[in-house]
Amino acid sequence: MTYELLAPVASISALLFATYSAWRVLKGETGTARMNDISQAIREGAMTYLRKQYRTIAIFVAISAIALGLALGAFTALAFVTGAVFSALAGYIGMAVAVRANVRTTQAARGGAGGALMTAFQGGTVMGMMVVGLALLGIYLLYLASGDPFEVVGFGVGASLVGLFARVGGGIYTKAADIGADLVGKIEVGIPEDDPRNPGVIADLVGDNVGDVAGMGADLFESNVGSILAAMLIGVIGATEYGREGVIFPLALQAAGIFSTILGTLLVRALKGTKPQTALNGGMFASGILVTIAACFLAQGMFGRLNVFYAALSGITAAVLVGLITQYYTSSDKPPVRAIAESSQTGSATTILTGLAMGMKSAALPVLVICGAILLAHEFAGVYGVAIAALGMQSIAGIIVAVDAFGPIVDNASGIAEMAGLGPKVRRTTDALDSVGNTTKAICKGFAISDAGFETIALFLVYTLHADLETVLLTDPSVVIGLFIGGILPFVYCGLCLQAVGTTAFQMVEEIRRQFREIPGLKEGRARPDYARCVDISTAAALRNLLAPGLIAIAIPIIVGFTLGPEAVGALLIGSIITAFPMAIFMAYAGTAWDNAKKLIEGGHLGGKGSLTHRAAVIGDSVGDPFKDTAGPSLDVLMTILTTVSILFAPLFLKRL
Amino acid sequence: MTYELLAPVASISALLFATYSAWRVLKGETGTARMNDISQAIREGAMTYLRKQYRTIAIFVAISAIALGLALGAFTALAFVTGAVFSALAGYIGMAVAVRANVRTTQAARGGAGGALMTAFQGGTVMGMMVVGLALLGIYLLYLASGDPFEVVGFGVGASLVGLFARVGGGIYTKAADIGADLVGKIEVGIPEDDPRNPGVIADLVGDNVGDVAGMGADLFESNVGSILAAMLIGVIGATEYGREGVIFPLALQAAGIFSTILGTLLVRALKGTKPQTALNGGMFASGILVTIAACFLAQGMFGRLNVFYAALSGITAAVLVGLITQYYTSSDKPPVRAIAESSQTGSATTILTGLAMGMKSAALPVLVICGAILLAHEFAGVYGVAIAALGMQSIAGIIVAVDAFGPIVDNASGIAEMAGLGPKVRRTTDALDSVGNTTKAICKGFAISDAGFETIALFLVYTLHADLETVLLTDPSVVIGLFIGGILPFVYCGLCLQAVGTTAFQMVEEIRRQFREIPGLKEGRARPDYARCVDISTAAALRNLLAPGLIAIAIPIIVGFTLGPEAVGALLIGSIITAFPMAIFMAYAGTAWDNAKKLIEGGHLGGKGSLTHRAAVIGDSVGDPFKDTAGPSLDVLMTILTTVSILFAPLFLKRL
Repeated sequence: MTYELLAPVASISALLFATYSAWRVLKGETGTARMNDISQAIREGAMTYLRKQYRTIAIFVAISAIALGLALGAFTALAFVTGAVFSALAGYIGMAVAVRANVRTTQAARGGAGGALMTAFQGGTVMGMMVVGLALLGIYLLYLASGDPFEVVGFGVGASLVGLFARVGGGIYTKAADIGADLVGKIEVGIPEDDPRNPGVIADLVGDNVGDVAGMGADLFESNVGSILAAMLIGVIGATEYGREGVIFPLALQAAGIFSTILGTLLVRALKGTKPQTALNGGMFASGILVTIAACFLAQGMFGRLNVFYAALSGITAAVLVGLITQYYTSSDKPPVRAIAESSQTGSATTILTGLAMGMKSAALPVLVICGAILLAHEFAGVYGVAIAALGMQSIAGIIVAVDAFGPIVDNASGIAEMAGLGPKVRRTTDALDSVGNTTKAICKGFAISDAGFETIALFLVYTLHADLETVLLTDPSVVIGLFIGGILPFVYCGLCLQAVGTTAFQMVEEIRRQFREIPGLKEGRARPDYARCVDISTAAALRNLLAPGLIAIAIPIIVGFTLGPEAVGALLIGSIITAFPMAIFMAYAGTAWDNAKKLIEGGHLGGKGSLTHRAAVIGDSVGDPFKDTAGPSLDVLMTILTTVSILFAPLFLKRL
Repeated sequence: MTYELLAPVASISALLFATYSAWRVLKGETGTARMNDISQAIREGAMTYLRKQYRTIAIFVAISAIALGLALGAFTALAFVTGAVFSALAGYIGMAVAVRANVRTTQAARGGAGGALMTAFQGGTVMGMMVVGLALLGIYLLYLASGDPFEVVGFGVGASLVGLFARVGGGIYTKAADIGADLVGKIEVGIPEDDPRNPGVIADLVGDNVGDVAGMGADLFESNVGSILAAMLIGVIGATEYGREGVIFPLALQAAGIFSTILGTLLVRALKGTKPQTALNGGMFASGILVTIAACFLAQGMFGRLNVFYAALSGITAAVLVGLITQYYTSSDKPPVRAIAESSQTGSATTILTGLAMGMKSAALPVLVICGAILLAHEFAGVYGVAIAALGMQSIAGIIVAVDAFGPIVDNASGIAEMAGLGPKVRRTTDALDSVGNTTKAICKGFAISDAGFETIALFLVYTLHADLETVLLTDPSVVIGLFIGGILPFVYCGLCLQAVGTTAFQMVEEIRRQFREIPGLKEGRARPDYARCVDISTAAALRNLLAPGLIAIAIPIIVGFTLGPEAVGALLIGSIITAFPMAIFMAYAGTAWDNAKKLIEGGHLGGKGSLTHRAAVIGDSVGDPFKDTAGPSLDVLMTILTTVSILFAPLFLKRL
């Protein structure tokens, strides 16, 4: 009974800690009037977009809820709506604080790096704690009400749905603005990043919030929910030898993860005098070690043996290894990024080819690490072990989200410093933090994808157990077809995301070119650009394009299930994971590597800023932008939503036979 | 007994027809001394490369043959070596004629389009007939000698191995040269395609032969072998109700395919007075219709019912549909290519993004068509039907190869006309044929990939039946790991191919830049470039980079089989097909669409040649080059080699348990 209470205590602690962190951020000073003007423009753009996005999603959620209620009962519909609302709530509050933390970070940076680090990190902590707190609270309450984890699956579907829309919409918004601003600003006009003369600069800064804060938060919310659910569900059906404890353990482990991350977060503050990267790494490592120790005690206490702990440890170890692999493939001082930077000397075609090649090759190692973890976890504790390993990896999501959201906040802070003309010293401080943010963002991205892949495998195992599909007839054509449909989904999906960004970036470039052409004195800084037009373009495009991918993700497994049967859906799931997982890594790593190759050149290598090599690298970065921030992360959510929807509908697919 | 004789008669007819076609080509006139000089340079470069490539492969084949002999017996080793030698022979003879047909096509073009069309097409016919003739002959003789189709699998592995090396090596060669010549020539110096001042131009023309003739021929040789073998093997194990006829039918159907293509080829000659595209299309359609009729009679005659014919018809229909889909996604007058061309107006980043997006979305339809064909074929005639459908699609490979090889021959002819300064009239004739060649090349590419995908599914079914793996335990971690290893292989593979091309193109660009910088008067046409240096760069790079992908393809299934067992290999196969098939389509379509978007602009749209839009489109084309001609087609061969190697070793994997 004590173990069961860990979940509500931890989730409420997380929400309280989020409130405390928000209070710490908001009591910070906001600086000059000019700074406040800029911050307000960003805040308004971001909040307006988020509200419009939620309105679009709400209609879709309402219709789906009614359909679900009729097909699967009122409780499922309730769980579904709760999942959607909790996810939206975490995103809303997290971003509302982030758009206030940015200017306070800039102001703090006028006094030094330590204060700025803490303001930005605390801003991110709000998102992190909201995500893990609401995820665990929602699951706990629904489980308490129903007594059956399968009744909670709707919560996961709701969360995935909002996660998908937020990722796709936010991703399109941010990258179209970013590419448009960069291509015209850096290449055609030759002005620096975040220059106030660039009409796309506010849209770009808004994008950081709606994409990299709200979108990312919703993404990790649904991964977190998925991991906890997968372990609970396998605890019920696939690992009956653990009894009821098998269902409670995942809740307890995640609770331990929350406590560990709160302590890790406090450690960051204690380390704020050291190098920013050291402080953040310290917090993440400490959280990981604490949750490992806690897992050991929990396993011993609840099961009287350590096999489940070893499974969790496999997952945690995999997380560390993937982090190291990510650093290798995306850091400026490692061969892959250097190769991309060097290939830029012969123009953008070779930049693109080298980046694509590096990205594709880089997909192998993280997948193999996850495979190794699966093998070990299965050895220790069977299919239950696999789900626990995925959850082990996910348990410190709180601090991962905090560190990840730190990135766009300092990015914004840096932009505000530039636009408000605060001078080189402040800019140097924010730039240094921004560069730390880029590194941590890459690590978090590798974490998020591997974790989503791992979690989806666990959910896939749930589906196979739930639909009694442990063995599948490979010569059955509906299985072959299911596999192929699953395999092509990630391609279609990425195609839709890239196209939406490409088309919107095209409009953005045309608009920014138009403003530079038609507004007299803009280039010389004597006139102000029309920021709002660019914000409107991104907003409209994101809202227009976010629905199609979501509809595909939900409709396809249902259609396949009712026409080709549950085996075909199982095949579809495995087909989609096999393709989406390496593709997501490819997209994330290639995109980040292009970005850092550009930064390497901007740092003065191979001709530096303004050289032809730099131009080629900017093209590479622009292609990579939607790779790493739109298509790649959306694939994470795609994988989860396919599996959760399939689990939810599995009983109906079976009845059809 | 009569049906059995069809195979030797047809294969010898094919070889005789190849000889006749070669004789027709070689008796053509070779034009001016300058034309002969250029042709000789191309011929020497191509033949030197091919000999070196075969020497590299020979060592690898010899070692593999000894290993195979020890592990699986002398007959398997013999079959393996025969497969490798026959593939190499088809490639060698086919290319030897192609590099002589080019200059004769140019010379014929001085007298009009009809003669030039026939010379180039007959040159291609030699390759086409060598491929299908030697494939069928080899299988027939080995089957005659052993009486067991499983003893013939070694032939398929040998063919796949040479196919893989030839595709990868040829693909790297041709695209590095093409990109290097284009990037410096078109963008930096501003001289037209095939300009004799460009130091990379001979390497580019050599590349067309070693990549698009020899490489393509070896690729289709192994697909052809794989399709026939798959149907024979399933005839033995999966469809015992058909008895011995089930094994003979595939041989007879392919024989009928050969006769149909010979007649189709003759029709092209009869139509040479019409538009070139009409003549070639007419020949392909006629072959398809003839083989359909023949299949109907064969099925009725051999089985007394038509169900197997319907299965073949599903495959043939799928081939036609894929052809139409290919045209939609790659033709200049259809929306996808237009969208890419238009996106070039805002620079190369949007060109790349739009092309990637289009390519990714385009992967869905061909895969779904193949899925539909599988479902139908299975409905009519079970797993045997699936293999027959794949073979039905493949049966007219002879004319497909001929039409495909037509492309690089007229491309060469066009280059020779430009370099020999034959004036605009001849150039217009060769350019018109070149443009026809590009369209047919795209159709053949769509055909080759879909066909390889289909064939690999048939081979996969053979593996599952052969290894008694019809049902697989999805919760077994070794299955999950096998699936993932299979899924990442195509990524790693494409990465290796793209990187090899990227790196070599980098060297090529540097060398061409160096020559323009250091050779006085080169740009003005007063000095001759050092063509040989560029030829050497491509040759060395191709030879250096072709082994690694081949080793991976052979080693991985064997390692997985002996460590994780036959189930894991089955999972690996399905994982690799699911990823490789859509990826190959994505690569082929995106690459061709970029190419045609560039051609659309060069045709005077959106600013025409020399505009910024054109520059962006050239970058898109350069990125697309290794997509469509190196990585994409190599994936076809990868899929087959994985399955044939696995089938060969399946008995040993099973013994291990």
